[in-house]
Amino acid sequence: MFHHVKELQFNARVSEPDPKFAALLLEQFGGANGELAAAMRYFTQAFSTRKPYPDKYDMLMDIATEEFSHLEIVGATITMLLDGVNGELKNAAEASPLNKLTKGKAGKEDVLHEALTNPQFLVQSAGGPTLTNSQGVPFSGSYIDANGDLTVDLRSDMAAEARAKITYEYLMKFTDDPLVHDSLRFLMTREIAHFQMFGAALETIQPNFPMGILQGDPRHTHTYFNLSNGAEARGPWNEGQGPWSAGESWDYVKEPHKHVIDTQGEINHEPKSVNITQKQVEAKNKELSHKRSAEVKAKTTSAPTQWSSYPQDSIDSPVKAQTTGI
Amino acid sequence: MFHHVKELQFNARVSEPDPKFAALLLEQFGGANGELAAAMRYFTQAFSTRKPYPDKYDMLMDIATEEFSHLEIVGATITMLLDGVNGELKNAAEASPLNKLTKGKAGKEDVLHEALTNPQFLVQSAGGPTLTNSQGVPFSGSYIDANGDLTVDLRSDMAAEARAKITYEYLMKFTDDPLVHDSLRFLMTREIAHFQMFGAALETIQPNFPMGILQGDPRHTHTYFNLSNGAEARGPWNEGQGPWSAGESWDYVKEPHKHVIDTQGEINHEPKSVNITQKQVEAKNKELSHKRSAEVKAKTTSAPTQWSSYPQDSIDSPVKAQTTGI
Amino acid sequence: MFHHVKELQFNARVSEPDPKFAALLLEQFGGANGELAAAMRYFTQAFSTRKPYPDKYDMLMDIATEEFSHLEIVGATITMLLDGVNGELKNAAEASPLNKLTKGKAGKEDVLHEALTNPQFLVQSAGGPTLTNSQGVPFSGSYIDANGDLTVDLRSDMAAEARAKITYEYLMKFTDDPLVHDSLRFLMTREIAHFQMFGAALETIQPNFPMGILQGDPRHTHTYFNLSNGAEARGPWNEGQGPWSAGESWDYVKEPHKHVIDTQGEINHEPKSVNITQKQVEAKNKELSHKRSAEVKAKTTSAPTQWSSYPQDSIDSPVKAQTTGI
Amino acid sequence: MFHHVKELQFNARVSEPDPKFAALLLEQFGGANGELAAAMRYFTQAFSTRKPYPDKYDMLMDIATEEFSHLEIVGATITMLLDGVNGELKNAAEASPLNKLTKGKAGKEDVLHEALTNPQFLVQSAGGPTLTNSQGVPFSGSYIDANGDLTVDLRSDMAAEARAKITYEYLMKFTDDPLVHDSLRFLMTREIAHFQMFGAALETIQPNFPMGILQGDPRHTHTYFNLSNGAEARGPWNEGQGPWSAGESWDYVKEPHKHVIDTQGEINHEPKSVNITQKQVEAKNKELSHKRSAEVKAKTTSAPTQWSSYPQDSIDSPVKAQTTGI
Amino acid sequence: MFHHVKELQFNARVSEPDPKFAALLLEQFGGANGELAAAMRYFTQAFSTRKPYPDKYDMLMDIATEEFSHLEIVGATITMLLDGVNGELKNAAEASPLNKLTKGKAGKEDVLHEALTNPQFLVQSAGGPTLTNSQGVPFSGSYIDANGDLTVDLRSDMAAEARAKITYEYLMKFTDDPLVHDSLRFLMTREIAHFQMFGAALETIQPNFPMGILQGDPRHTHTYFNLSNGAEARGPWNEGQGPWSAGESWDYVKEPHKHVIDTQGEINHEPKSVNITQKQVEAKNKELSHKRSAEVKAKTTSAPTQWSSYPQDSIDSPVKAQTTGI
Amino acid sequence: MFHHVKELQFNARVSEPDPKFAALLLEQFGGANGELAAAMRYFTQAFSTRKPYPDKYDMLMDIATEEFSHLEIVGATITMLLDGVNGELKNAAEASPLNKLTKGKAGKEDVLHEALTNPQFLVQSAGGPTLTNSQGVPFSGSYIDANGDLTVDLRSDMAAEARAKITYEYLMKFTDDPLVHDSLRFLMTREIAHFQMFGAALETIQPNFPMGILQGDPRHTHTYFNLSNGAEARGPWNEGQGPWSAGESWDYVKEPHKHVIDTQGEINHEPKSVNITQKQVEAKNKELSHKRSAEVKAKTTSAPTQWSSYPQDSIDSPVKAQTTGI
Repeated sequence: MFHHVKELQFNARVSEPDPKFAALLLEQFGGANGELAAAMRYFTQAFSTRKPYPDKYDMLMDIATEEFSHLEIVGATITMLLDGVNGELKNAAEASPLNKLTKGKAGKEDVLHEALTNPQFLVQSAGGPTLTNSQGVPFSGSYIDANGDLTVDLRSDMAAEARAKITYEYLMKFTDDPLVHDSLRFLMTREIAHFQMFGAALETIQPNFPMGILQGDPRHTHTYFNLSNGAEARGPWNEGQGPWSAGESWDYVKEPHKHVIDTQGEINHEPKSVNITQKQVEAKNKELSHKRSAEVKAKTTSAPTQWSSYPQDSIDSPVKAQTTGI
Repeated sequence: MFHHVKELQFNARVSEPDPKFAALLLEQFGGANGELAAAMRYFTQAFSTRKPYPDKYDMLMDIATEEFSHLEIVGATITMLLDGVNGELKNAAEASPLNKLTKGKAGKEDVLHEALTNPQFLVQSAGGPTLTNSQGVPFSGSYIDANGDLTVDLRSDMAAEARAKITYEYLMKFTDDPLVHDSLRFLMTREIAHFQMFGAALETIQPNFPMGILQGDPRHTHTYFNLSNGAEARGPWNEGQGPWSAGESWDYVKEPHKHVIDTQGEINHEPKSVNITQKQVEAKNKELSHKRSAEVKAKTTSAPTQWSSYPQDSIDSPVKAQTTGI
Repeated sequence: MFHHVKELQFNARVSEPDPKFAALLLEQFGGANGELAAAMRYFTQAFSTRKPYPDKYDMLMDIATEEFSHLEIVGATITMLLDGVNGELKNAAEASPLNKLTKGKAGKEDVLHEALTNPQFLVQSAGGPTLTNSQGVPFSGSYIDANGDLTVDLRSDMAAEARAKITYEYLMKFTDDPLVHDSLRFLMTREIAHFQMFGAALETIQPNFPMGILQGDPRHTHTYFNLSNGAEARGPWNEGQGPWSAGESWDYVKEPHKHVIDTQGEINHEPKSVNITQKQVEAKNKELSHKRSAEVKAKTTSAPTQWSSYPQDSIDSPVKAQTTGI
Repeated sequence: MFHHVKELQFNARVSEPDPKFAALLLEQFGGANGELAAAMRYFTQAFSTRKPYPDKYDMLMDIATEEFSHLEIVGATITMLLDGVNGELKNAAEASPLNKLTKGKAGKEDVLHEALTNPQFLVQSAGGPTLTNSQGVPFSGSYIDANGDLTVDLRSDMAAEARAKITYEYLMKFTDDPLVHDSLRFLMTREIAHFQMFGAALETIQPNFPMGILQGDPRHTHTYFNLSNGAEARGPWNEGQGPWSAGESWDYVKEPHKHVIDTQGEINHEPKSVNITQKQVEAKNKELSHKRSAEVKAKTTSAPTQWSSYPQDSIDSPVKAQTTGI
Repeated sequence: MFHHVKELQFNARVSEPDPKFAALLLEQFGGANGELAAAMRYFTQAFSTRKPYPDKYDMLMDIATEEFSHLEIVGATITMLLDGVNGELKNAAEASPLNKLTKGKAGKEDVLHEALTNPQFLVQSAGGPTLTNSQGVPFSGSYIDANGDLTVDLRSDMAAEARAKITYEYLMKFTDDPLVHDSLRFLMTREIAHFQMFGAALETIQPNFPMGILQGDPRHTHTYFNLSNGAEARGPWNEGQGPWSAGESWDYVKEPHKHVIDTQGEINHEPKSVNITQKQVEAKNKELSHKRSAEVKAKTTSAPTQWSSYPQDSIDSPVKAQTTGI
Repeated sequence: MFHHVKELQFNARVSEPDPKFAALLLEQFGGANGELAAAMRYFTQAFSTRKPYPDKYDMLMDIATEEFSHLEIVGATITMLLDGVNGELKNAAEASPLNKLTKGKAGKEDVLHEALTNPQFLVQSAGGPTLTNSQGVPFSGSYIDANGDLTVDLRSDMAAEARAKITYEYLMKFTDDPLVHDSLRFLMTREIAHFQMFGAALETIQPNFPMGILQGDPRHTHTYFNLSNGAEARGPWNEGQGPWSAGESWDYVKEPHKHVIDTQGEINHEPKSVNITQKQVEAKNKELSHKRSAEVKAKTTSAPTQWSSYPQDSIDSPVKAQTTGI
């Protein structure tokens, strides 16, 4: 259950209206890396985490709730940047142009041009935010990554925070209003904080690599296919030990076409530069399968199930649904 | 700013897992008439309402917050209906089929069939909700209507509540779990309550017809074009006084093609069955333009602007931004 | 079956080309509240209405047909506003800039800028309308609400007409061409007329509240959850009788969190301020279920079925399909 | 302006309800190659054709109008295939399952399964068509090709008719209802007829190759890049004269990588197997530019412009707008 | 398997940065008729062609690979047109405006305006291409036509090449950079070449009309419905022999409404102007069904199947999968 | 430039057709975490990396090319799983059901049911892949993250590989064909390998945290807002040092609402638990701005620019465009 608090989490202020920057800022309202995308990502992921990992659930819901609070800050800022638009449009019988919208310019032509580059505010929302990105593309549920595995979801979350951070960084180049700048800097900073939270949470899950349950096939984990011609770039991503365990290293396939024919399409490819055997892989797979599966199942209470206790005084879900009182 | 309360607004319970009904219920999670669409509709509309109409803002945010709380109920129910899916998928090394998912049936074929009709839970989310409708179509920002005019927005809201209500009504035909039924009935009922709230709020705005500011052109308001051949259906929507003022009535154009040629494409069409003149229309337009425009502008405080006071102890927005402390 | 008449329903005229306004006007061609959305909304709704409610079917098809005719007016106006674009682009071998498109300005830079803010006409359609909104977002089937219940659909239609009306009202602020203004005013006025038609039709269906069949649960219909902190706004939407029957009133829950815990998530919530009992609700539900279900089924002729008679000389569908002559 | 005729263009009939085939048939209602896509394609293309090529305009509008009439046939068939669904859903208070929907089967499980594979009809539209394809993907304006050049548009139209035809051919494999089969065969056949109409119209435009105005660069028109290794397939598309003029032939580049380096990225590539020179190309470009540009401009009457005459008794557009009577 | 060659297929060069033209050029990167759409169209179609028609498969893959190479040229050009954007954005701490982006203009206002009309490069990608069209609409899989029949697919491909060609033709009007012009002309020319290849390939398939397998119903193939009123346009698409066989001709239905009633919705319509009988049609249908079905089935090797041989030294697929070595 | 090699990178094989699994596997063809999304993500990111970081460019293009090769493997597998579909559909004149598609079952009903749950293969593509996910949602350009900063993009890439890996892991639960399993395991393993490559590359960029250029505001970096009521979960993500430098720690805000009011919306919030000062932050910001901006600008050769040399014998881009030979 949610509660709305009338005070914004950050004291959003605006020095003067600026419809153009308002349009850019939509990127953080309804864009792919915006605040609603963030809020819904963590909120959606939280559900399947609730029972088996209630501590991670609590973190995901805290951050989701903060992102909803950020969405409100962004929407409030956009609305203040558009101050005057709604009042002018309500003056519907008046033939004179919407002069107030174009600082220091005059004439219908400028207003029209403004409208053309900014139709969402003048023809659709009349001065409020729209659930689109800065180019008018509607928000999409496809922005949400929720794959039911914390070693995956937390990585998606860290990457999403990185994208949101850089978007605020870019946006700050396009306003010199110090009050707006201040809000954006707060929001940008919180993405860094969340990134750190997700990273710390990921570290508490061991092992977290490879993500999910299954180990890679040792014949294919360490291979780098040099699929371009000509001058080659080498680095820790395709030579030397790289991120592998001691004694292991990258296996650089210089001529992939020849290699593929030689190995009959990788079927006869023997693992190289890897210390683990197929048997060990299988054993690891089974072990982790059983561990994680057991963790999840242990918390799957037998039916009927109930989501909350009243009051919810423990971090764990209720054991059993009350079925009276329907 | 938002706050999350761990207890669900309604005590959502599930008698036993039912992945198929979970899929149908997605319609209310990420569908066009679902809870996120409702929450974002009122939340988005609220911004431009905040200053000129703080009482309507408060109502819109209360209901938006309730819809977020309903979204949580729907997500929780879907997750409980999918109990077991995540645990089975974590058992990744195990070759045996996901038997638990198909009650009373056996064999891989059934599980596969299940997966095919339900891939979002088995291949994408692994047992949690997805931000899609029941057919997998991602949620879209285009579901959100926010047009910057309360006489329009409140009507959009009433219609949206009507659609949400009927969707719950249909959904209830497809589950006989009494616990799930109970939650759905609560959610359905709240749509009725919200419909009434929006209707009552619309009544406090006068005049609220025509929606927006401008009156219709009296030459065209009362005309019904009979654009089909053959047997005609007549009713209060095309004959008699209908919803018009006393002394006015519908003007039924039986042969639209002839009429269009006779009037040179409506240009020479004289108003009929209408009591208002073009002059009166213009006067009304000016009067309401000035009234509404003034209402909105009066509350548009001069820049710099600030969204909240700390604490926000009045229903009105703060008069002026504090610009110290940046 | 449809027939095309070469005369436009309204005599659309344009004083001079204006590519920028053409772009804004796309909002009414392929936008969410545009004429195609309107036409397809009523057309799609009409199908399931045809047999049980042939008078409403006739109205829906008349209005749908008028909306197709409006779509043609909008497309014709856009095309006339773009006069010259196609001819210039056909001059493909000529290096000189598209001067005619930028009134009173010169140079490639201006044309390019124009193109950038208006690419749909210069790079995609070459001077005709595109099936998008004013920002280039393609028309979407998700704009169409058709829920198979007239008490819902007619409300969706009224709201949609309200949105279309306000969009025309906003658009009129951005052109001062009196001929275009004249067309827009006609189109805007027709939305008002349609709104009245749908409203009148809704009134002929009794009861039409709650929409659909089922009554609300009396424990939850009258409750208002005060989900925000601080200063409260009260009005007919959360205090007093509001839109309820005499003797009933809103039940204002001042502290929802406490209330939810006290009622164990609403399960122990007793109806307050409501005069109807659960039993009465159930009786009403059954009664209306039978009535409406019977209405619909009565008109569902036994198979084989046929859509039209030749000629269709009655408002009702044919009773039985002819199965000879295949 | 459009007119609706109550008789369907084809006598659509259904032997008995079949919700599954109804779902497949949506492909032709709101799918990429369906009837609405066809209708809107020709309708949208027609606008910019109206003045310069009124005969093609007339053809495009005739066929667009027929496609709207086909859309109605498809929608009517879907609705008849769903007979019974709406009536059952209206019986909302009744706990018993929707037995009628699953022929010869019993029990809630089957109905639920049906609903899951068919949610659009049971949870969204309640027994009418939806503006989606057979998988629930909403219709999109991006299905519409309208590029402002008849040598391009007519080719798009022929291809679209080909796709629509094959879709009907596939659909017919999934119903054995002879009445439905009959309707589908009519619709499929009309796609063939339209294909022929568009082809005949394209032939009347000379030259129509290359499409548009500009000739290709003779250095690159005749080259075939063999971009795959190994065994090569040769045919009239990469060897011999192919579709070229007498004396010309394909220029097969066997080793593209070597060729690209040898020609410094095609810059030093001399035309081979081509009879036309760059100069001749330039002359042709200018000639056709002037011809087509002149054709279009000749019909672009000076402003103010008007779309129709009342009555429209000639195939040409009116010369000049009447500006009285506003 | 693919291989990347560092040299571009065409030597793409840019005289100076031009962010506005970069935005327009996105139409060919992620637009409906752009290079990715082309590449994926042929690539996707190729799969089902591989076994039965390996020569056509080879052609489709050669052209798909060339289109990927063109996508790279377009992306490279966009990036060079944006030279400087990324460097400026990296200068994140600097308050001074992005002067370099607006040639000959000064001040934040201009940069902001630029950003507003071009947000994808300044706020999203920071100076690289985005997978959208020129208006920011994301690339969509719905642009891809692949219908599993070469007589259909090759026609879709020819139409797609026509659209891509005209798009390049339009784009060339908006840049006067001779180096960019040179690249665009190469790309435009290749669309012509591909059009010819697909046309030549289509000719090798006989019969290829009607597309697919089934003949049209002779009652409906030759009919033209005159669905508009007033002055009529006649031409080879609705009068005379048109594209039909000798002795056949168009059957012009002047009054479709009367015709439909007379024929009871086409059911009693006798073929006219056609030489083929229903019997002959059925025979043709069977014959071609057997021929094409046999062609495809003949190449469907019995399971287990394998896609490639190592090496793939013949144009045909391998006969049988090797099942050792898993 | 790309080259196609007829041998698949992995020897994809199929034991027997399985249309249902083919549908699930579409998730990796046109789904959000599928192979095309991966290929286009790295390919699109590579462009702006080309000049300043040619070694990362080379890596991104190698991996993009491998992902295109994987896309081919997935498409080939889907096609082999559908063996027989195309041949059956070509048998268009035959009334008998598509028996071969439903192993061991008989009757039209089963085939129809199959078609309904799998319409993309039977009604759209006729036995080849479609550019959609497993539920028919078209591939979207919005799946592609490319933000013009390697510290962001490489994190997006690692997260995307994690999602792709888990999707293969889930898919493997739904097939027991050992040959298909083998291909999926190869593909899954390569996602792990790529994840490691991107991680290793990210490590070579220092500093890479915070991502982008700007440091966070030290007042907000270390704060955790406890936005839920009740029992609290504590862990390294909100208590203790967490991922911060020695001497720093999380600042847990237990009562956010009180905190926000106390700090006047964070404006008077003094940094706590952080060792860095605002001045130091500013200095760091400037330093890194200059460094990264200089890195990028240094490689931005003055115009005119050229993308490739012929041959491209160095890893760096050519210094200057050749402008002869146009």
